[in-house]
Amino acid sequence: MIGQAWTRRHVLATDDWSRAEIEMVLEQTDVMLPVLTDPNRTVRRTPALRGRTVVLFFAEASTRTRVSFELAAKALSADVVNVTTAGSSVEKGESLFDTVRTLEALGGEILVMRHAASGAAQFVADRVTSAVINAGDGWHAHPTQGLLDAFTLRTQLGDLAGKRIVILGDVLHSRVARSDIHTLVPLGARITLSGPPTLVPVAWRCGQLPEGVVYEPDADRALAGADAVIALRLQRERQESGLLPSLREYARAWGLSEERVALMRQGAPVLHPGPMNEGIEIAASVAHGSRSLIERQVTNGVAVRMAVLWLLASSPVTA
Amino acid sequence: MIGQAWTRRHVLATDDWSRAEIEMVLEQTDVMLPVLTDPNRTVRRTPALRGRTVVLFFAEASTRTRVSFELAAKALSADVVNVTTAGSSVEKGESLFDTVRTLEALGGEILVMRHAASGAAQFVADRVTSAVINAGDGWHAHPTQGLLDAFTLRTQLGDLAGKRIVILGDVLHSRVARSDIHTLVPLGARITLSGPPTLVPVAWRCGQLPEGVVYEPDADRALAGADAVIALRLQRERQESGLLPSLREYARAWGLSEERVALMRQGAPVLHPGPMNEGIEIAASVAHGSRSLIERQVTNGVAVRMAVLWLLASSPVTA
Amino acid sequence: MIGQAWTRRHVLATDDWSRAEIEMVLEQTDVMLPVLTDPNRTVRRTPALRGRTVVLFFAEASTRTRVSFELAAKALSADVVNVTTAGSSVEKGESLFDTVRTLEALGGEILVMRHAASGAAQFVADRVTSAVINAGDGWHAHPTQGLLDAFTLRTQLGDLAGKRIVILGDVLHSRVARSDIHTLVPLGARITLSGPPTLVPVAWRCGQLPEGVVYEPDADRALAGADAVIALRLQRERQESGLLPSLREYARAWGLSEERVALMRQGAPVLHPGPMNEGIEIAASVAHGSRSLIERQVTNGVAVRMAVLWLLASSPVTA
Repeated sequence: MIGQAWTRRHVLATDDWSRAEIEMVLEQTDVMLPVLTDPNRTVRRTPALRGRTVVLFFAEASTRTRVSFELAAKALSADVVNVTTAGSSVEKGESLFDTVRTLEALGGEILVMRHAASGAAQFVADRVTSAVINAGDGWHAHPTQGLLDAFTLRTQLGDLAGKRIVILGDVLHSRVARSDIHTLVPLGARITLSGPPTLVPVAWRCGQLPEGVVYEPDADRALAGADAVIALRLQRERQESGLLPSLREYARAWGLSEERVALMRQGAPVLHPGPMNEGIEIAASVAHGSRSLIERQVTNGVAVRMAVLWLLASSPVTA
Repeated sequence: MIGQAWTRRHVLATDDWSRAEIEMVLEQTDVMLPVLTDPNRTVRRTPALRGRTVVLFFAEASTRTRVSFELAAKALSADVVNVTTAGSSVEKGESLFDTVRTLEALGGEILVMRHAASGAAQFVADRVTSAVINAGDGWHAHPTQGLLDAFTLRTQLGDLAGKRIVILGDVLHSRVARSDIHTLVPLGARITLSGPPTLVPVAWRCGQLPEGVVYEPDADRALAGADAVIALRLQRERQESGLLPSLREYARAWGLSEERVALMRQGAPVLHPGPMNEGIEIAASVAHGSRSLIERQVTNGVAVRMAVLWLLASSPVTA
Repeated sequence: MIGQAWTRRHVLATDDWSRAEIEMVLEQTDVMLPVLTDPNRTVRRTPALRGRTVVLFFAEASTRTRVSFELAAKALSADVVNVTTAGSSVEKGESLFDTVRTLEALGGEILVMRHAASGAAQFVADRVTSAVINAGDGWHAHPTQGLLDAFTLRTQLGDLAGKRIVILGDVLHSRVARSDIHTLVPLGARITLSGPPTLVPVAWRCGQLPEGVVYEPDADRALAGADAVIALRLQRERQESGLLPSLREYARAWGLSEERVALMRQGAPVLHPGPMNEGIEIAASVAHGSRSLIERQVTNGVAVRMAVLWLLASSPVTA
């Protein structure tokens, strides 16, 4: 089905991926999705990773991403072990390096990790022979989120070439925004970032933007005629004081209201990586309205992670 | 084996169940129990839920109920995912509604949930297409506890028609008491509640009791000649100050001592939903004495939950 | 393969084990290790414990030991349930006795437990019919650590008869030191303890040492010509004030530096039970140097635990 072979040992960030690599994951996701949704439940498990151990090492709180990887790994018949910071040896002062070497020595062949430090996944990947999947590292990257957003948008919009996607909100602190850019631009989409200038990286709001990306502080102008919008979570817990007007002012200026959704091209869909602060960055009626693909993102996320796990496990590099 | 078909999509509370529905669960439990206890261990797993995902969403501390559901689901070959509040997106301020919709979009087909808010399970069931099993919501209901208590009592006492069961202790804060009443009364049992007047709902101690239920504040009079007693956990963590005399006075007046057990009909059994505060609502010698069915309740609980999971999964409504 | 039959119901401490029993575990580990490391991944699971439930009850923080047991049990096809103190009924004031009786009534046939109280595993084993494996109880014992250290040393050094092994560091608070002594001495090894006098049991530093064990406060003299060293974690969280000079002085006097490693017999290996405080009890260059068997210990630990689980499950006493 795929002419080219997968050659990466790790999935750390998509910023250096070729279009062909992104396509490979999306095509593999197309194969995986029916396994999850097939009404004949006996085929919901494939033996692709039988006898392999996937360690989910989450040093930051997470429900959807951790459970998504857990269900993806189980659907491929892998053994899954959960390790969280609470109750782990990290509490006893062990270094990240020693923790992951231990997880590897225990038999972990694929290490899915989330960590508060940008670059943590790369640091680990440089030091282990296991395959490493970055499930979010600080503000840096969340590659499977970018891939699932691309998959979800393509299912709805078809070919993304020339499509204009708005990424709305707290771009500065968002690994989702970075991974979306690095996945959607290679597929031909044009990105419009919108959000308060204080929540956009300085270089970007000064015009030094990545190719295919523009910044438009005014949300209404950004959304006018757009093909889709990805609303970002307002990372309240990461917000240093002073970066934001009040939450109410923020919601008024950049919250995704029904009026703003109406500015987009007819039928243009709404995405959000979750968890949502309804009433702040997105209106409840939009989050649960007919344009929302937010739950579809969640379902697609499991299939994307199955695809990524499968590609890593079947690669000649790691197999 | 069962003439009637199961038609409920959810198990939220047994207060509107017919006797036939209760019987259906108890009969199915009879089928499940040997799977757990068969000495030939290779048959300890049935493939009834293979390929299905059961999500255990516990937003309140629990060992026995969570583990009981986990083992029940695994004995039916389901994939089980644990989600607890700590480390979940609930910590990030996500609404209960969004959390459960996400769990459903991830592929959860049966959602077992515990929550501090009375009505939480109903709220969720009204908003998802998954089957919802209430594993305890505030002071409201804990239906599988009521069912396992009925199963355990019936195994010991036979037909419950006309049997007099005492429920002793903190009735006011007890979802177990409510679910026991709503399961035992339809089976023909008569219930005597006993406990301090401050720990009984006002309407009940004023005589407006459900059919089949009486209130007798004096523990000795309540127990005299009874066929069984269910001692309730004294929910110390929920107790507002002022509702109780001292713990020592409470134990003296309503604690289940050997002397009190001796007031019941000969051989009348003792139940407790656990976890126990030994020396307070129950004497250690009673908890671990020959009349105690407390460990049998735990074992039966796994079988009851297998029965409930199986009925929901095989129902034409949810299948 | 093994002439003698395994007759123990529990694994609580190795202090009363015969040499033959220790050998039996080590030989069974030799059988298990290839299951874990076989490149043909389809054989990585053996059905030895299919249909059996292993409960991991960890009332103290742990990553490596808990995950090691979890992977060992899964490699034997057991159902594994994790119970930790956080979110468990222990938080609600339930007694240890009631908790473990409940875990047993739930169907737990093998109970792996870690607890802060010395003697907790014995206390439980005396009161349940399940098989109990002590995964660490206070300062008392950690038998599978002793067994995996013996297995790892024997793989490297061959027959341990007459070999001199140094155990270096905080002996007083170390269940690992006790279990190492009780495993290595019966195999013929001679043990030299070294560490600050305040961190050695009073009787031991006064010369009342177990057979085969000597105490040498000076680390350099202890290590001179030794065949191997086991560096102990400095249990900072357990340290009462006043038992230690500063951490820097401790590291200078008893830390395992490259210079100290060079004092041993050529090629003599370095072990550490983990998690490590690098720069305190062990230099980072030693921890990750060519002499280090620390990761091999982790891998061997899974195989040792498979062996122990298999022996308990297949014993006529518990089967």
